[in-house]
Amino acid sequence: MLLEAIYHRPKSNWAYAYDERTIHLRLRSKRDDVERAALIVGDKYAWDRTVEEIPMTKWISDSLFDYWHVSVQPPLRRMKYAFRLEAGNEAVWFVETGISNEEPKDSIKMFDFPFLNPADVFTPPAWVKDAAFYQIFPERFANGDPGNDPVAVEPWGGEPTPKNYFGGDLQGVIDHLDHLSELGVNAIYFNPIFKATTNHKYDTADYMTVDPHFGTNETLKQLVKACHERGIRVLLDAVFNHCGHTFPPFLDVKEKGADSRYADWFHVREWPLDVKDGIPTYDTFAYEPIMPKLNTEHPEVKEYLLNVARYWIEEMDIDGWRLDVANEVDHRFWREFRDVVKKAKPDAYILGEIMHDSMPWLMGDQFDAVMNYPLTNIINEFAAKKERDGASFANALGALLASYPQQANEAAFNLLGSHDTVRLLTLCDEDKQRMKLATLLQFTLTGTPCVYYGDEIGLTGGYDPGCRKCMEWDEAKQDRELFAFFRQVIALRKQYEALRTGDLTFLFAQENDMRLAYERSLGSDRLIVAANAGAEADTLALPVTSRHWRDLLTEEDLIADNGELHLCLPANGFRLLLAQS
Amino acid sequence: MLLEAIYHRPKSNWAYAYDERTIHLRLRSKRDDVERAALIVGDKYAWDRTVEEIPMTKWISDSLFDYWHVSVQPPLRRMKYAFRLEAGNEAVWFVETGISNEEPKDSIKMFDFPFLNPADVFTPPAWVKDAAFYQIFPERFANGDPGNDPVAVEPWGGEPTPKNYFGGDLQGVIDHLDHLSELGVNAIYFNPIFKATTNHKYDTADYMTVDPHFGTNETLKQLVKACHERGIRVLLDAVFNHCGHTFPPFLDVKEKGADSRYADWFHVREWPLDVKDGIPTYDTFAYEPIMPKLNTEHPEVKEYLLNVARYWIEEMDIDGWRLDVANEVDHRFWREFRDVVKKAKPDAYILGEIMHDSMPWLMGDQFDAVMNYPLTNIINEFAAKKERDGASFANALGALLASYPQQANEAAFNLLGSHDTVRLLTLCDEDKQRMKLATLLQFTLTGTPCVYYGDEIGLTGGYDPGCRKCMEWDEAKQDRELFAFFRQVIALRKQYEALRTGDLTFLFAQENDMRLAYERSLGSDRLIVAANAGAEADTLALPVTSRHWRDLLTEEDLIADNGELHLCLPANGFRLLLAQS
Repeated sequence: MLLEAIYHRPKSNWAYAYDERTIHLRLRSKRDDVERAALIVGDKYAWDRTVEEIPMTKWISDSLFDYWHVSVQPPLRRMKYAFRLEAGNEAVWFVETGISNEEPKDSIKMFDFPFLNPADVFTPPAWVKDAAFYQIFPERFANGDPGNDPVAVEPWGGEPTPKNYFGGDLQGVIDHLDHLSELGVNAIYFNPIFKATTNHKYDTADYMTVDPHFGTNETLKQLVKACHERGIRVLLDAVFNHCGHTFPPFLDVKEKGADSRYADWFHVREWPLDVKDGIPTYDTFAYEPIMPKLNTEHPEVKEYLLNVARYWIEEMDIDGWRLDVANEVDHRFWREFRDVVKKAKPDAYILGEIMHDSMPWLMGDQFDAVMNYPLTNIINEFAAKKERDGASFANALGALLASYPQQANEAAFNLLGSHDTVRLLTLCDEDKQRMKLATLLQFTLTGTPCVYYGDEIGLTGGYDPGCRKCMEWDEAKQDRELFAFFRQVIALRKQYEALRTGDLTFLFAQENDMRLAYERSLGSDRLIVAANAGAEADTLALPVTSRHWRDLLTEEDLIADNGELHLCLPANGFRLLLAQS
Repeated sequence: MLLEAIYHRPKSNWAYAYDERTIHLRLRSKRDDVERAALIVGDKYAWDRTVEEIPMTKWISDSLFDYWHVSVQPPLRRMKYAFRLEAGNEAVWFVETGISNEEPKDSIKMFDFPFLNPADVFTPPAWVKDAAFYQIFPERFANGDPGNDPVAVEPWGGEPTPKNYFGGDLQGVIDHLDHLSELGVNAIYFNPIFKATTNHKYDTADYMTVDPHFGTNETLKQLVKACHERGIRVLLDAVFNHCGHTFPPFLDVKEKGADSRYADWFHVREWPLDVKDGIPTYDTFAYEPIMPKLNTEHPEVKEYLLNVARYWIEEMDIDGWRLDVANEVDHRFWREFRDVVKKAKPDAYILGEIMHDSMPWLMGDQFDAVMNYPLTNIINEFAAKKERDGASFANALGALLASYPQQANEAAFNLLGSHDTVRLLTLCDEDKQRMKLATLLQFTLTGTPCVYYGDEIGLTGGYDPGCRKCMEWDEAKQDRELFAFFRQVIALRKQYEALRTGDLTFLFAQENDMRLAYERSLGSDRLIVAANAGAEADTLALPVTSRHWRDLLTEEDLIADNGELHLCLPANGFRLLLAQS
């Protein structure tokens, strides 16, 4: 056994409470190295009379490691534990002080899960794992009220530039909720809607007011109400890392310098405010002078922003916040933010924008989830860009799932594109089949999927500003076949809980091979996703235990032959199969 | 290179802010496998014009791994980074998405330290790393006021039993502060002093009152004042995991059952309160019916206990809290506790009783340190019990130091015995030489050392109640030679900052060999601790760069011969050497 590969450390993703009674434990070993793993567990104050041994399951793998899993419910909510790993005739015991060939006698050196306190259980809102999101960039979705258009408004459908306007607004969203209901989504994430100077509104001027170009606070209230009547939840964008250059406290600092009563609201490294060689003398988002970083440690700034967080929930009834540049704000702020938000609405969704490993924010005290860009890369590099083979897909997904508690994976925000990326169809070289394949993968994996507005009817576009085109409302110009596909996968995900929270098992994932198959199973439901991301048609034979299968996308019936399901998959083809018996 | 051994994950002990400007990064590789490691680091928003490469230092090792270290100060407090590891002609790059043979092009897949926010910096009080503690079990230290003796008081110096009393009190401590000053300690940790029914007082009846057998709140105030006048800080024991069975809210629940307004202050699994087959129907400490676990999630309980935490600091001026059974209380409670305590006294010391890996409590938001029982085991198993050789000592210490941020190591509470263990001298089979060796190791390693009352004058005793004997105040019966040794090592630790915060390098640590040598260095100061924990006298030749050395314990001068220092070490012998040039 390769001892250097064996890893476990409480708590994080390795030993955590899944709910108020259940503890999940995970163990890592070198891939294909360990044959059996077991948990040895007991009450720490009565080890001898409570100790038991529970076999672990080999759960998932990445390129280097296997990950083992076991779920336990210690009756007194506390336990000590050790692991036994076996391969051939070799057995080792793994405790907190290390790995040994001898069974540990001394429970003091074992791992400890001291007590499962409900206050520490990481509990994302239950609705999130069952939701299907839709992201709206408000300036470009629909113009429902020409009366609030910017002076320089351009005709709807023109070429987007970094600074132009097309008049999209909240009334436009209200007017088009039928489109969302028809699609089947039940939650909207809005890019910023507060008063700002840009078309993207990430440079907030006033956190308490809807941008006049988008409508009024009253319009938002109506929009949220209309959404709720349709069972659609609403998430707003909280840009709390930085404000805009026209935010009154910053204007005051610009005017009065160090004498401003708001001087400490910002991080000024050198007076006066200036930009030298492209570097502002005050902290900003990136090097952007119009986005000064807020000092979220300052009690007044905290009070101000937490009041903002509370206001839009209490007054407008929104269902959560997406947090812009979330990882550059202090953890302490986010802990207080969580308290305020959850007090105002216990099942509000707190979604952080973090592109990297986010464990420090997903311990239960800060966010419910992060924008799952690592998954974006895994799916798009396989299905859209063909830079990743089936084995790489499975390994990267294994590593990703293993890196977070299960509830974080269930609440992850799974997107394939956004206002900050190339549009999915464009990434697929406008090959609709690849786009569908990517989308099928997105909707059959754990986490809450999000459709970027317009992707469902075939909008194209490169990086910003290309990806921020106006929504196409002329049905003749919409790709209705693509829309039907999105509608279908959204409905199937809703119908089959196994696609949302079922166990995931890879059935086929090999190196230098673009074919892929995985099973999602829950209770007696078993579904198989089979795909061929290759440029040529191919076949795939999968060992299965059921004889009768139905393709949920085509309603075709398939019969396994001698315990094998023989699938013909065109280039970028896919199937979603349900075991019938 | 063994890829499976390579590890790094932000944040925890692997990537953390050491202070408001400095980030420490660590990397793990298989022991003796990697020859060079380097950090590749840059500003994430201007990678190309800021990227630089910084060599890492091989810092410390354990039995399986080497740990590499580097300290950086990114000018804008944010960075992305990758590691390059080299061995022979092989080079690999390690980024967040994995290990590769090719230099990463895409900074999005690198590791991220998004922003160093001062609010998140883990900052234990600066005084702790320079302190020398003394632990007092108040019932057994000194009887200064016979007027408050329990009715059943027994003559001072009698045989301790689990339930008897000898009349020790706070006045006794006041009377004997000269002893502490002579010894040189500058901080006291008191076992509980609040009103309770036992001699150990871990079953609190009233958190707001000093136990009448120990004195009054006024006596404590005088004691703290007298200590402060001598530069001695005072730490009290916060027993917040559970109360005692005579705590009025629990009495109310016992009387009124589920109808008590305090019913939710506890965790009652089944009414009525009962003990069935030795298992209480309500959560307790261990299975102890007289110690009901408090529901520290209940707002009233929180308010009550946080008020207690505040009261003794604000009214009595104590300098911190030692937290009993700290890991069974919820993290959320401890976060609020930290806020309350640090607001009342910013440099108060928060010390958790945790015997296990304590990373989840040492992130900056909860404790300043934990009782360092893992170090207790490492030192005692080597020096006292001879169960561990020099290599095992060095490896276990390496693993321990690598598992925490540096500031946690600096503030760790290093004890060799307590009211919960066999006394050190008894553990050493009453071999004073072994005890001195253990103590020298304790006082020359990072972390704040603590002397358990009476160890310094030769008290013996087995597990509780043996380790809770009365202090010996008859100088004729005290081991004054031992006292002089303690006094000397305390003074030397105070004199040489290198012993407190210097770099640690092992010079000699081998398998099946009880000899050990390590260097502590800081600036131009270099000290060597050399020891022979073997049962026979032995010699040790250490390669050194200085020619002249002084043994600080014997004041003997030594001269290196041809770059080697030749030491004769008797059985359990040791030297503390200072480079003279």
